[in-house]
Amino acid sequence: MKTVHNFNAGPCVLPQQAINSSIEELKDFAGTGMSVIEVSHRSKEWQGVMDETEALWKDLLQIPDGYKVLFMGGGASTQFMMVPFNLLEKKAAYLETGVWAKKASKEADFFGEVVKVASSADKNYTYIPQGYEIPKDADYFHITTNNTIYGTEIHTDMASPVTLVADMSSDIMSRPVDVSKYGLIYGGAQKNVGPAGVTFVIVREDILGKVSRKIPTMIDYRTHIKESSMFNTPPVFSILVMNKTLKWIKETGGLQAIYKQNIAKAALLYSEIDRNAMFVGTAEKASRSVMNICFVMADGYQEKESAFMEFAKERAMVGIKGHRSVGGFRASVYNACPKESVQALVDCMREFETLNT
Amino acid sequence: MKTVHNFNAGPCVLPQQAINSSIEELKDFAGTGMSVIEVSHRSKEWQGVMDETEALWKDLLQIPDGYKVLFMGGGASTQFMMVPFNLLEKKAAYLETGVWAKKASKEADFFGEVVKVASSADKNYTYIPQGYEIPKDADYFHITTNNTIYGTEIHTDMASPVTLVADMSSDIMSRPVDVSKYGLIYGGAQKNVGPAGVTFVIVREDILGKVSRKIPTMIDYRTHIKESSMFNTPPVFSILVMNKTLKWIKETGGLQAIYKQNIAKAALLYSEIDRNAMFVGTAEKASRSVMNICFVMADGYQEKESAFMEFAKERAMVGIKGHRSVGGFRASVYNACPKESVQALVDCMREFETLNT
Repeated sequence: MKTVHNFNAGPCVLPQQAINSSIEELKDFAGTGMSVIEVSHRSKEWQGVMDETEALWKDLLQIPDGYKVLFMGGGASTQFMMVPFNLLEKKAAYLETGVWAKKASKEADFFGEVVKVASSADKNYTYIPQGYEIPKDADYFHITTNNTIYGTEIHTDMASPVTLVADMSSDIMSRPVDVSKYGLIYGGAQKNVGPAGVTFVIVREDILGKVSRKIPTMIDYRTHIKESSMFNTPPVFSILVMNKTLKWIKETGGLQAIYKQNIAKAALLYSEIDRNAMFVGTAEKASRSVMNICFVMADGYQEKESAFMEFAKERAMVGIKGHRSVGGFRASVYNACPKESVQALVDCMREFETLNT
Repeated sequence: MKTVHNFNAGPCVLPQQAINSSIEELKDFAGTGMSVIEVSHRSKEWQGVMDETEALWKDLLQIPDGYKVLFMGGGASTQFMMVPFNLLEKKAAYLETGVWAKKASKEADFFGEVVKVASSADKNYTYIPQGYEIPKDADYFHITTNNTIYGTEIHTDMASPVTLVADMSSDIMSRPVDVSKYGLIYGGAQKNVGPAGVTFVIVREDILGKVSRKIPTMIDYRTHIKESSMFNTPPVFSILVMNKTLKWIKETGGLQAIYKQNIAKAALLYSEIDRNAMFVGTAEKASRSVMNICFVMADGYQEKESAFMEFAKERAMVGIKGHRSVGGFRASVYNACPKESVQALVDCMREFETLNT
């Protein structure tokens, strides 16, 4: 098996320990003599995984009382629609920090008035807007805390005069979060908390049940709260890997320790981008993401782009091609991306500089 | 690892070959040096799995032109809502053959008039109603082809004067199906076609786009058709195991061969139920399911129920407790359930008879 440095934007690198341990459960789950994908989701063994996974969420994020943690299918894209279905009576406010934020806001259009409080579209979403006003009569205010495509991130848990709803698909569990600032947090698992196929929702119960429309059963958060995410068969294997991934985070020292590692990894790569004359970062410095690091060839070196891509590929760098709307390169350095991989990329950039300048 | 006879109703026994081969891809996917849950869903390697899985569906079920095969999250329960969202303009007809059929019809209530053409609730859903009339002005007619809880099944592909929609969660790929008779077929994968976490939809394209309501993006089948089930990140691992499971079906000889095996397994167990004075089947004979075989203790032997349960457990029978609404026993003998397991259960029933009569 070849060794690669996995910088995929998601699905992405996961803790090897979580993968290995999930493989063991695929062979024989909890001593049942069956694979984890062959057992009843109503068995006590599986219920144990569900309970433990929920407890790990609550523990790692120090989720206060009054919140529920839910696991569903359908991805964050399904949440784009479920959020307004459950929360939007008249008006919702959205912050437009990229195409995913825009997609979320588009779904709200089906249900009521949508106020775009600010947008960074004018500079291709390379910064997080500041100084906007959140309408006090909005049912909620929606943000996307990390924008994978552009490499920008909202680094703090903001105060909002109305219910704050956050898509944290790509930075959940990368840092401690003050959950009490949010009414609802959601995201696809496939960055820091597991593989594709499961979506997490952290919701403060008292924000629900306030819209007048009828809500189909599977779209109503209260269904999933009432049945503890087991109204229907949950996405078993994805939840299992999530469980193992959260355990790894805990064993690594929890979110303070993980955050420290993430800051160090990001600093290592951003320092090189800023030092190396051949490259330049695309995001405004104050808005730089700790998770997705975007850079392009600097002026005068643009024609070297494909050469560097080849050079990096030969050195086992995977997934560093930037999104087509930004171009250049993107290194996603999620929780499970080892510092050694970041160092290897930095070395690669230095070597390329030496050979080309 | 202990050997068990897995009669779980779903999630359930899967082909060992499919599990083993999926484990290999979890270790190193297609020689990429990464786990299948660590690669980009936009990689050519993953696109290959998506394309092959769709081709296997089309091949095994001989799906005619004009139909699309889609893979989604959210389970069949999400389809209960998506079907009327996309197809119900004024009126829909539903056949009530159990609680799942009833749950499907309940979601249609949100969108229009629902006509219950017939119900077998009068006899606890132990038979499939016959001789009802399907309203010719209905937008569609919805059936549940196999009713796992009660062990009943619609064995033929009926002619319907309006678009026929079928939940085939628990008998898809157990027999050849004349797809041309249906407008839409859907189901959770977690019986015959894979693990929990992925839902299949086979839809004839020309039935879509006819309702006047606005449909949120993720709920609109056309979104998933347009993006070939990759509008957002698909449930990667569940689709991979589905791919391997379908390959196993193909290698086993396709649906004619599988159906022959299934008929033989069901006959083996039903014969014993009918022969053995201690047991009695709960479903009407003409409606008996080939997949889920329900039986209770016969008159005079009711007090032996828990003794037989213990007796069977000691002989490694797993998942044979009947659903609480039927009681007694249920053996689910899906595609991957080996004939040896069915024989072991039959032997167990005979031995119990010898010891107790």
